[in-house]
Amino acid sequence: MTLPDVPTDALGFAAGMLTTIAFVPQVYRIVKTRSAHDISWLMFGLFSLGIVLWLWYGLRTSALPVILANIVTLTLAVTILCLKWRYGRDSLPHPWRRRWSRPANPGSKP
Amino acid sequence: MTLPDVPTDALGFAAGMLTTIAFVPQVYRIVKTRSAHDISWLMFGLFSLGIVLWLWYGLRTSALPVILANIVTLTLAVTILCLKWRYGRDSLPHPWRRRWSRPANPGSKP
Repeated sequence: MTLPDVPTDALGFAAGMLTTIAFVPQVYRIVKTRSAHDISWLMFGLFSLGIVLWLWYGLRTSALPVILANIVTLTLAVTILCLKWRYGRDSLPHPWRRRWSRPANPGSKP
Repeated sequence: MTLPDVPTDALGFAAGMLTTIAFVPQVYRIVKTRSAHDISWLMFGLFSLGIVLWLWYGLRTSALPVILANIVTLTLAVTILCLKWRYGRDSLPHPWRRRWSRPANPGSKP
């Protein structure tokens, strides 16, 4: 007798879904706040590179779920890198950074 | 004749390494800048939940590399959630957020 492997597959599917869609709220947050300077270039750079390798691995092993999940994750991770480039100008001094990302400052003193 | 599968394994190993260590520079950045308000709670929450499921999947399939990589990733993702709790007080009004996370403000006017 063999144990049914459907629950294990479902587990892997749910895990893959969660670690993929997790990036959506980060994209949404950056777009909404127009601020990304707390986001690490290196984190999303290394992560994107890792996802490229996972994609390559999926193509080598002809694993369609791995390929599809990593295409979506790569798209989202690269979107975050683009948003970081747009809204995370770290080279600017601190007070400018906010002014740069927020045209109106409702909390400013007269 | 079968093709050697070592390169494919090496690919998977490198991919897993990169998507795991990627979180280290994000932890470092938050600790260094004492700021995490651009980090999305939902991203790291969903991601951590996904990693718990991957860990469970690894235990079910007795895949030691999956277990080990996900223990490390979970530790780092939960660390980021703790740092977000410490340095990303979104409920505070904007000027307070910075003061809260930076005891001294070198750019303040007299």
